[in-house]
Amino acid sequence: MDTKGRHIIVELWKCNKDVLNNIIEMERFFVEAALKAGAEIREVTFHKFAPIGISGVIIISESHLTVHSFPEHGYASVDVYTCGYSIDPYIAVEFISQHLQASKVEKMEITRGMGTLRFSNEK
Amino acid sequence: MDTKGRHIIVELWKCNKDVLNNIIEMERFFVEAALKAGAEIREVTFHKFAPIGISGVIIISESHLTVHSFPEHGYASVDVYTCGYSIDPYIAVEFISQHLQASKVEKMEITRGMGTLRFSNEK
Repeated sequence: MDTKGRHIIVELWKCNKDVLNNIIEMERFFVEAALKAGAEIREVTFHKFAPIGISGVIIISESHLTVHSFPEHGYASVDVYTCGYSIDPYIAVEFISQHLQASKVEKMEITRGMGTLRFSNEK
Repeated sequence: MDTKGRHIIVELWKCNKDVLNNIIEMERFFVEAALKAGAEIREVTFHKFAPIGISGVIIISESHLTVHSFPEHGYASVDVYTCGYSIDPYIAVEFISQHLQASKVEKMEITRGMGTLRFSNEK
């Protein structure tokens, strides 16, 4: 596997608070996001906090997707990190942003595995 | 939970290739790294690829640790992301870097959950 990876850091604000706290729904559309991007899923782990909030991870052959939701703030912190050249992480980012009904989306792309960290603010 | 988080992006090069491919050892010291940093562990998922390489995730109450190893390149891509003010992510970063015997370490810190993404290149 090539070490080069695209790591998209995503900040989602003003999301739907009910979706942010629905672990079944969240896991379902994160899996769908990974598949739509063309990833091969290896492990899926989602965790519900009491009284509120979800953390979830999908390990894919090409790296990972993660989410941490803060329903009380309408906020989700999302990472989509893909190695290789076969898949487009932004397909997953867009799908997740839509499903969380985020009104404010901020993204940063970090190029990893190239010897020197590089970043850009947008696609 | 406060949304503010410190996300440390870590690139480890010239690591010990045997350690990079030892899933039992890797999981053990990632768990230890999380605990040393003061995190509360919620989920631990490590995955071995054939013929080589490991991906692992630890979900903590305060966010996550991840690793993707490329033993053939002596490289590991590590993230340590902690929310709140109670724990120091750099304790985990240093512990992991030492255990992987990395000769070259590059770090970037991203401040998350504050409305606007901010970053710095070093601690």
